[in-house]
Amino acid sequence: MTISFEELSDSYECIFFDAFGVLKSSAGIYDGVLDCLEALKGRGKDIYVVTNDASKSPDAMMATYTPAGAAPIFEVDEIITSGLLATEYLKNKVRSGHVAYLGKEASAHYIERAGLEAVPVGLELESLQPKALVLLDDEGFDWFEQINQAMNLVRSHNMPVIVANTDITYPSKAQEVGIAIGGLASLLEVALGRQFTRFGKPDPMIFNYAFERARARRPSLEKKDVLMVGDTLSTDIHGGNKYGLDTALVLSGNTLASQYDSLMKAQGIVPNYVCESILT
Amino acid sequence: MTISFEELSDSYECIFFDAFGVLKSSAGIYDGVLDCLEALKGRGKDIYVVTNDASKSPDAMMATYTPAGAAPIFEVDEIITSGLLATEYLKNKVRSGHVAYLGKEASAHYIERAGLEAVPVGLELESLQPKALVLLDDEGFDWFEQINQAMNLVRSHNMPVIVANTDITYPSKAQEVGIAIGGLASLLEVALGRQFTRFGKPDPMIFNYAFERARARRPSLEKKDVLMVGDTLSTDIHGGNKYGLDTALVLSGNTLASQYDSLMKAQGIVPNYVCESILT
Amino acid sequence: MTISFEELSDSYECIFFDAFGVLKSSAGIYDGVLDCLEALKGRGKDIYVVTNDASKSPDAMMATYTPAGAAPIFEVDEIITSGLLATEYLKNKVRSGHVAYLGKEASAHYIERAGLEAVPVGLELESLQPKALVLLDDEGFDWFEQINQAMNLVRSHNMPVIVANTDITYPSKAQEVGIAIGGLASLLEVALGRQFTRFGKPDPMIFNYAFERARARRPSLEKKDVLMVGDTLSTDIHGGNKYGLDTALVLSGNTLASQYDSLMKAQGIVPNYVCESILT
Amino acid sequence: MTISFEELSDSYECIFFDAFGVLKSSAGIYDGVLDCLEALKGRGKDIYVVTNDASKSPDAMMATYTPAGAAPIFEVDEIITSGLLATEYLKNKVRSGHVAYLGKEASAHYIERAGLEAVPVGLELESLQPKALVLLDDEGFDWFEQINQAMNLVRSHNMPVIVANTDITYPSKAQEVGIAIGGLASLLEVALGRQFTRFGKPDPMIFNYAFERARARRPSLEKKDVLMVGDTLSTDIHGGNKYGLDTALVLSGNTLASQYDSLMKAQGIVPNYVCESILT
Repeated sequence: MTISFEELSDSYECIFFDAFGVLKSSAGIYDGVLDCLEALKGRGKDIYVVTNDASKSPDAMMATYTPAGAAPIFEVDEIITSGLLATEYLKNKVRSGHVAYLGKEASAHYIERAGLEAVPVGLELESLQPKALVLLDDEGFDWFEQINQAMNLVRSHNMPVIVANTDITYPSKAQEVGIAIGGLASLLEVALGRQFTRFGKPDPMIFNYAFERARARRPSLEKKDVLMVGDTLSTDIHGGNKYGLDTALVLSGNTLASQYDSLMKAQGIVPNYVCESILT
Repeated sequence: MTISFEELSDSYECIFFDAFGVLKSSAGIYDGVLDCLEALKGRGKDIYVVTNDASKSPDAMMATYTPAGAAPIFEVDEIITSGLLATEYLKNKVRSGHVAYLGKEASAHYIERAGLEAVPVGLELESLQPKALVLLDDEGFDWFEQINQAMNLVRSHNMPVIVANTDITYPSKAQEVGIAIGGLASLLEVALGRQFTRFGKPDPMIFNYAFERARARRPSLEKKDVLMVGDTLSTDIHGGNKYGLDTALVLSGNTLASQYDSLMKAQGIVPNYVCESILT
Repeated sequence: MTISFEELSDSYECIFFDAFGVLKSSAGIYDGVLDCLEALKGRGKDIYVVTNDASKSPDAMMATYTPAGAAPIFEVDEIITSGLLATEYLKNKVRSGHVAYLGKEASAHYIERAGLEAVPVGLELESLQPKALVLLDDEGFDWFEQINQAMNLVRSHNMPVIVANTDITYPSKAQEVGIAIGGLASLLEVALGRQFTRFGKPDPMIFNYAFERARARRPSLEKKDVLMVGDTLSTDIHGGNKYGLDTALVLSGNTLASQYDSLMKAQGIVPNYVCESILT
Repeated sequence: MTISFEELSDSYECIFFDAFGVLKSSAGIYDGVLDCLEALKGRGKDIYVVTNDASKSPDAMMATYTPAGAAPIFEVDEIITSGLLATEYLKNKVRSGHVAYLGKEASAHYIERAGLEAVPVGLELESLQPKALVLLDDEGFDWFEQINQAMNLVRSHNMPVIVANTDITYPSKAQEVGIAIGGLASLLEVALGRQFTRFGKPDPMIFNYAFERARARRPSLEKKDVLMVGDTLSTDIHGGNKYGLDTALVLSGNTLASQYDSLMKAQGIVPNYVCESILT
């Protein structure tokens, strides 16, 4: 049923990789992945990370894909995060002023790179008249205090709410998961009776952002030349399919070898290919 | 459009009152309410509180309805809380052993009165092999730590999850609301892909519990002799209607005089009567 | 893992049976079921059918449980349908006048037994000023014409909408399913942005209706003396558990032997017992 | 609060118009609209229709925007329908073979223009082994027969299901609405427990499709040079905002002058501008 990723990769000029469950786990980069990526580059493939993550900047992520004593595998503009889509939104639609956020200080990068002033949700916020609220990361604030404050801020001041990572949960440590900022966004949507503006896989905008960047470098690139590789049917594969890319499911993360067949049937989401991992 | 509550109450032998927005706010019992309730009792009416609340015992609530230097207005078995339904469930379906909970220590009352051992969600919980998780109250724990622990507990050990108060938000202080335990339950349901067992208005079991208790005292009581009085269409009125009671919406809480008409239309929930408050 | 139903039934005074998948399929009563039910009665058990069905009257259903040349197994008041809850609602809350419905003519029984005038949804309906709309059955009308007319009726006239059977689908013939009236109700709820009043398992009112009727005959009956037997976790077992009854899942219908274990885990719904069928 | 559309249009090089409620109603093109569009073209503006509609081809739609005895206002490639996105998907992901559909025969255009064989849902379909199911339009088939057949087709053969128009309802005649194919898609999603692949506003892919086509003609075009004009907050405005365009709400369709302010607050969706209509 599964095929060799090495062989499969021959047929594509450009490969988009999900990060968690494909290249790494919460314990770090998988053994052998950096060599595998280096080899792909050696064979002339363009490679990109396409990840639902707004917890830190692409620069900070780049550093984690660096072999000991060597240059990083990815250049900074080869790392596409859902946070970058929030930056685009803020640039196009907010343009100036203060923007409130929930997340770690490092995640505020995505507000600041739009030229705006990032202010953590807090009691003294109202006087600054924030023009938007951005949900960036599940850490860096007190959930009880700041989630309730964020809810009352939006109730009393009509402002757009942007969710910079739609994931509901993330793998936190062996066998455990944590509630991600996309889960907290769902809580606030239920409590406020509103739908926020969400960025990240499976939404097509992140695939479009990555595809346009890849085509800037290789102008002849067509959708059929790109392979999206991910470990999650509902985000990587569903979104990649919808955007019109070929898709490969890997069994090194979220989706186990014992369950992918029944999940594909239950969800009606079918990748073009299934591979054990990118190392096989 | 609105009618006098005093007049209306003449037609019923038994009246069920929602607490928040009808009898009291977060600042305390509304002025005049205790006199009004006393007068109803004087006119031979049976009165009950029917409230979505599992934060403290009916005994503790009883104390708040006590005129200075007088006896409490309600007897303890005239206060029906959604927490009591969780107790019933635990008695019928769990019967013995440890039960994990999220909430203040006072809310654990609803586990203990079922004869079970209540243990707050925490790291050392797994060794006790809890037989159920009960979501009681939004305070008394660290949201980040304990919500994530509760999620992983349920993922690793299949157990029933009981929600002892389905409200999503509650009025916390002037013009502000807080996320209630029913909202946190929605977050965990989304994260786990499961539906929990929820008690409290509009679910009919709390109305049935109250009606059976009222009929125990007044055996000839029929549903048509009972009036449910509440300030919220989607819980008090929708649930009261579904259970077959007559219903009166009051405009002293959640639902404003300026909006009740359009809300009734939008939601398709229509009370038998609308009153300014129970004081008019 | 599974236990003998015959042995299990010894421990209960009263047994509630779901119909489809437990006693029968779309092809008719399962072989051996009538003998099994007769034997239970011979051993002094009270038995009831508790079914999500508003397509025809309990009388009409009674006839199908009749051994050749013998009396029916069930008396008419031992057949509890979700349609009866709609009748209760109409009696308590509507009381007089015209009521519009979607369903076969035979399903209008549940409106008429409340003493009301049943009128099928149709163009000339508005002049009759119907006081409620009841969704009874998926057959007996043109879906395109009447679903759209029902939607516009509710948009232009605020009225309660009652769903007399919450099932989304039903087994129609070998390996196939059909969309039930509960599914059409979901469509109308989405289109109208409203929540209707729904009756039928897992909602506790049908269990309460059945339990009160059983206790009328056997006044000492307690919840712990009743076993709910069903083939569907999300309705029979979830609702039976919530109401406080013991529950047995049978593997003769919706839920296959190969999947019940993983379904129980995924949905977090656990019956007290699992039996192959009621014949074992 | 509202501003003149004529003045506003001066600031943009390119304008995207929603069709229903902006340019026309179910009774036809609004009086004065064709002159207004002609004038915009005369002032050098590029104009496009961006519509959730897969009921007929862009060619067929083009004909409706034709002044008596003159050339059509729009060229065929200035009409962007959600159906075109379904065509793109089929081209990229299905590529050859038979594709099943629900809709009028004219709507099958969107399958045929992808070079595929369109087959209406029907009993004899299974032998053709369709590779996908496309939901195109709410007319052209018997709802009871074909919706149930479509459900069983997808249950027995795992295939992608594409929704070529996500609208839940559409204005059918004065004051009335009809259930659109997006509503029927929701019914099938609930019945199958699956999420389909949906195209059309507010999903960003239709905005991206339109923007790329507009930029092909005017290569210097940036998002800030484009104004999206629509009558519906949740589709035209929410989607336009998310894609990064400036947005104008008009009050000539779905959204009434009396309600837009409270709707903007309730939904948290705010256009850059509000205009009475495009004629003012």
